[in-house]
Amino acid sequence: MTFSERLTHIQADKRSLLCIGLDPDYDRLPASVRDGRSPAGAIVAFHAALIAATAPYACAYKINFAFFEAHGAAGWEALQHTRALIPPDTLAIADAKRGDIGNSAQFYARSVFETMDFDACTVSPYMGRDSVAPFLAYPGKAAIILARTSNAGGADLQELESEGKKIYLHTALLARTWAKDLPGEAGLVVGATNAAPVSAIRAACPTLPFLIPGVGAQGGDPREILDAAGHGYGLNLINSSRQILYASSGPDFAEAAVREAIALRDHLHDIQSA
Amino acid sequence: MTFSERLTHIQADKRSLLCIGLDPDYDRLPASVRDGRSPAGAIVAFHAALIAATAPYACAYKINFAFFEAHGAAGWEALQHTRALIPPDTLAIADAKRGDIGNSAQFYARSVFETMDFDACTVSPYMGRDSVAPFLAYPGKAAIILARTSNAGGADLQELESEGKKIYLHTALLARTWAKDLPGEAGLVVGATNAAPVSAIRAACPTLPFLIPGVGAQGGDPREILDAAGHGYGLNLINSSRQILYASSGPDFAEAAVREAIALRDHLHDIQSA
Repeated sequence: MTFSERLTHIQADKRSLLCIGLDPDYDRLPASVRDGRSPAGAIVAFHAALIAATAPYACAYKINFAFFEAHGAAGWEALQHTRALIPPDTLAIADAKRGDIGNSAQFYARSVFETMDFDACTVSPYMGRDSVAPFLAYPGKAAIILARTSNAGGADLQELESEGKKIYLHTALLARTWAKDLPGEAGLVVGATNAAPVSAIRAACPTLPFLIPGVGAQGGDPREILDAAGHGYGLNLINSSRQILYASSGPDFAEAAVREAIALRDHLHDIQSA
Repeated sequence: MTFSERLTHIQADKRSLLCIGLDPDYDRLPASVRDGRSPAGAIVAFHAALIAATAPYACAYKINFAFFEAHGAAGWEALQHTRALIPPDTLAIADAKRGDIGNSAQFYARSVFETMDFDACTVSPYMGRDSVAPFLAYPGKAAIILARTSNAGGADLQELESEGKKIYLHTALLARTWAKDLPGEAGLVVGATNAAPVSAIRAACPTLPFLIPGVGAQGGDPREILDAAGHGYGLNLINSSRQILYASSGPDFAEAAVREAIALRDHLHDIQSA
């Protein structure tokens, strides 16, 4: 089964477009989780409770490598443990934003797809085809390529225009081309903070899965974004991180996360069904 | 002291522009190093011998994270051990090519500059200012930003033209701007396989340190590149990886690496002095 087929199946099954982003900032973890544990130990304990509680409502988890790497090798152990906590009926996305020449990219791809068995990995397009191709070499897996990101600096290069097209559109079209004739699948990171690029990229790439961060805390409007990106299953993963992770700083953090997860999942489902 | 000042001092002291790239492909390590060791243990043993032998001839080592991450958390332990083997009179560059929104980038920067005390880190510019700024927040350290890379795919986005300038030149000019008023310093990755972009970027950024991969195995001509990038100390780090690391697959690998390192160092010094 391709990544898209699995995504469609899981999203339809759980009626959920929700991807939960795991950005474990140790300083923001509940005291009840931190007490008596090492930082890496606390991160794993936090995720164990959080994933067990929220998995029925999420089609995917997105693990942000930055927050683990801040703790060095112990953080990487916590990363591998966290990956192993994600149940098989939920996709695991490595949010690592890797990108290097072909020889190095092969080793990055081996790390996320073989050593840790992630289902997809975010990849930077700046170094071009041979930096992305190794991530497209795995059947059933996806390279989710940065197209138009949700942050303020996203405009600096991505909104430059060349040959009548914005750079983010060049990237999206290249991603589609790069994936042709390779066993893996391309997806795109498209930020929710601005609907115009979402529409433009969806028009150019009608079937590519989009990973969409930026709703909630960053201000993206879910209805506007789904209207631009498409309502069907298998098309969009709507990511929410801090709003769910840090819904409560008390010992009830997992219950509070479930409430936020259900609310967003249901809101997205209502938009789809309208 | 700024990164550039340290670089100038070390390069003049050792009469060396040579940066040795550590890309430890386990399958290519000498049998004498692999035998009786775990992959991560073999990587550390290999680097211990290699760094001890070659450090007098190198101004810097560049550690490529991909090759360590392929081994998971054990690989990250080997990465931290390898970093600790680099002597204080030689710069340590994290070749990690990180790039993410500001909040995540802070944690990546903390990982390389605080947890592991690298002197510089390679960073992708695709996500713009706030993805790079956290790497520019450390006095004495440098964010070495991808401008024009040496690989074939480097042309895909970097050679597109916008407002009369190639994307790689936009990146170089942005990097210079981003570093203003921040305590850290910007450098640029500029591949050696094509001299024209090197000249154009040097003209736009006369004093920024360049990390230049692509001489030797990838075909870049050192004389052509130094003529384009400048002959002085503190301007250019000329990287060589595989040619030095795998100069011999026998138990004499460290001696063979020293011979290659001295030959390239001397060749670069001859070009400078001519």
